[in-house]
Amino acid sequence: MQLNKLTASEIVEFLRTGAASAEEVMQDCFARIREHEPVIRAFTILDEELAISRARKADQAMVKGALHGVPFAVKDIIDTRDFPTGWGSPIYASERPPRNASCVELFMQAGAIPVGKSVTTEFACFYPGKTVNPHNPDHTPGGSSSGSAAAVADHMVPLGFGSQTAASLVRPAAFCGIFTYKPSHGQVDPEGVMGLSPSLDSLGVLARSVADLKLCRSVLCRRPTVKFPSGSFPRVALMRGPHWDECSVHGRDACISAMSKLSDSGAEIIEIAHPESFENLANAHKIVMEYELATARCFEFHNYRSKLSQKFAEMMEAGFATTIDQYSDALGARDRAFRHFETFFTDIDLLLTPAAHGEAPFGLQATGDPLFSRMWTLLQLPAVSIPFGTGENDLPLAVQLIGRKNEDDRLLASAERVAEVLQSV
Amino acid sequence: MQLNKLTASEIVEFLRTGAASAEEVMQDCFARIREHEPVIRAFTILDEELAISRARKADQAMVKGALHGVPFAVKDIIDTRDFPTGWGSPIYASERPPRNASCVELFMQAGAIPVGKSVTTEFACFYPGKTVNPHNPDHTPGGSSSGSAAAVADHMVPLGFGSQTAASLVRPAAFCGIFTYKPSHGQVDPEGVMGLSPSLDSLGVLARSVADLKLCRSVLCRRPTVKFPSGSFPRVALMRGPHWDECSVHGRDACISAMSKLSDSGAEIIEIAHPESFENLANAHKIVMEYELATARCFEFHNYRSKLSQKFAEMMEAGFATTIDQYSDALGARDRAFRHFETFFTDIDLLLTPAAHGEAPFGLQATGDPLFSRMWTLLQLPAVSIPFGTGENDLPLAVQLIGRKNEDDRLLASAERVAEVLQSV
Repeated sequence: MQLNKLTASEIVEFLRTGAASAEEVMQDCFARIREHEPVIRAFTILDEELAISRARKADQAMVKGALHGVPFAVKDIIDTRDFPTGWGSPIYASERPPRNASCVELFMQAGAIPVGKSVTTEFACFYPGKTVNPHNPDHTPGGSSSGSAAAVADHMVPLGFGSQTAASLVRPAAFCGIFTYKPSHGQVDPEGVMGLSPSLDSLGVLARSVADLKLCRSVLCRRPTVKFPSGSFPRVALMRGPHWDECSVHGRDACISAMSKLSDSGAEIIEIAHPESFENLANAHKIVMEYELATARCFEFHNYRSKLSQKFAEMMEAGFATTIDQYSDALGARDRAFRHFETFFTDIDLLLTPAAHGEAPFGLQATGDPLFSRMWTLLQLPAVSIPFGTGENDLPLAVQLIGRKNEDDRLLASAERVAEVLQSV
Repeated sequence: MQLNKLTASEIVEFLRTGAASAEEVMQDCFARIREHEPVIRAFTILDEELAISRARKADQAMVKGALHGVPFAVKDIIDTRDFPTGWGSPIYASERPPRNASCVELFMQAGAIPVGKSVTTEFACFYPGKTVNPHNPDHTPGGSSSGSAAAVADHMVPLGFGSQTAASLVRPAAFCGIFTYKPSHGQVDPEGVMGLSPSLDSLGVLARSVADLKLCRSVLCRRPTVKFPSGSFPRVALMRGPHWDECSVHGRDACISAMSKLSDSGAEIIEIAHPESFENLANAHKIVMEYELATARCFEFHNYRSKLSQKFAEMMEAGFATTIDQYSDALGARDRAFRHFETFFTDIDLLLTPAAHGEAPFGLQATGDPLFSRMWTLLQLPAVSIPFGTGENDLPLAVQLIGRKNEDDRLLASAERVAEVLQSV
């Protein structure tokens, strides 16, 4: 048995029953990493010795935490005392923070063990890092949480931290064929995580099951996990959304066939047309993101201009050129759309909508279009991406589930049921 | 003329007209600092040489920013590349970040010049730093933005950065007899500022005029300043609030006589009784703050327990002991109260309410009670504190003005008029 293929929840159970030790799990993860990392390039830094020594300590510990002995990857915009934190930029390549981000510390206090830092695009934006898609190394893994998504998908580690300002969790999860949970804005403490856009940034996790996403949420938010009431099934609404026509044929088919499969399993399904106020939300998202990131990263722009990618410098310039009226109008559009969105949730538990255009595009010069997540991120909603089906190149596809703001437990509990159905043969 | 007594707006004007140079302003500020700092103890570190050299450069610059040549203090929970950033804790006493917080960079890009780091309480909470009240060194300056408040009040610098999670801007401003602007939650980018409580934290400024507060907002939020329409006057509602009886006699008198003075000047005034849903908001604030700061500062709690003050460790423990139900109930109470609060603003521009119990208490072992700001911070509302009157020991009193969420421009424009009236003889 290759222990690196276990999910976090399975590792916790194996350790609890003595079926494996934390050290054995870590050994298998590093065996996989040694074998595949030269091609996948998911990490900026790894420390096998430190991870193994921590695993040994975990095996001796009397008290076992909720993530005891679980290896995890840390996106390199997140502070770690044991590893440099480079933000995907040459400016900070050798920076080592004096502390762990709160999310890292919470994971470690729950017994989880960081193996190293995973690749991020430059400042968690659009200029790609070195990571490739584990399903086909000629295709992008998606971004910006590229390294964590690839490492989890390739069975190097069961869990990885990521973050989303546009589509940086959902897109790489979809492209790499794994699960992600992007929390409602404000649900997860951001201490020690590089910020881009205070209205949009969310820290989240990448994993290989919804059970693991729930487990991570319970540790990060210091709350119990929630199960969907037995004997009932979540009510699911398909929302094709304003960009349906831009979705690939296979991507659209995935949504439609997911809905059929849910219906066949006895789920109550409906379809909700998006209101007109949603049409321009992706553009509103872009305006808010550019305006806010121009402020958040003004230090690098003014002091290290020559070390920024042209792509990032242009986005900063667009942000500085955005007027306060454009920004205010975009926030106003968000607020109106949000009020409309709230009315959907009287009869449903979640929306199902495309996660991305389709499968991971060919090439490593870009990380794919964030279009299909922009509006949901702007609305500050919780999202779960579930792998489902494959595209024209036999690469993974996914559906995106959207919940009501701050009802993340309900979304995750519903998503667990949905995933059971979609993964059943 | 002592140039250190000028406000930021006056300095900008002096420099524009050539009435003074940035170097002369900086020289006068440092003359004052050299004379008073041994008693006031507002700073953790100062760099006169660097500040003077920057002032000389400012005098040679062709393009002049909105804060050109203005000296400012930076609360020591805010990252600065040129100075260590210690968070008021021995853990980080010698830490030097690789970059400036976005607020510092925006100020510097606008031409302002940091003189050093100002004292914060430990982690911007309740364990005091070394600063004393410039009006009477036996009294607290208030906290947590103690150093910036004292430095601005003592005419060492015209502007200081601060932050508020409970009452950390309004209380020291009130106790030191200066002005502060605590923005609506989310209005000012927090990059590079230590976080305690993502639902509550706001970065703000301390100054000696409302015009300066407006100027700072315009730089921090990259937007123009707004004037109250000429020929009209803001409609002001007195809200005594749930803690009126705990306010000192002088503190209550200050509110009442401020209302009379406004009425005498032709302002439309009313009184609004607080709804019952406000009664428990201060307690809800405490629950949210403790729950969230236990997460945000878990690294220090678990790794440097012996270096924490007992006060802070106890607050962390209270946070860890807070249940998810208590936390959720507190957020629910906030949301209900917020909806009620919104109904006030059909006929008024702002609420006037006590800024603190009264004048700065005797002693340096505590920074005073945050009670009178807790509920407004919980509601994420913008606040302006305006000095008005004196207490039984002839120390400054203040009134607190509260605006509608995200209508900070309207609040500041109204506050400017209110301050004109209250400061008139």
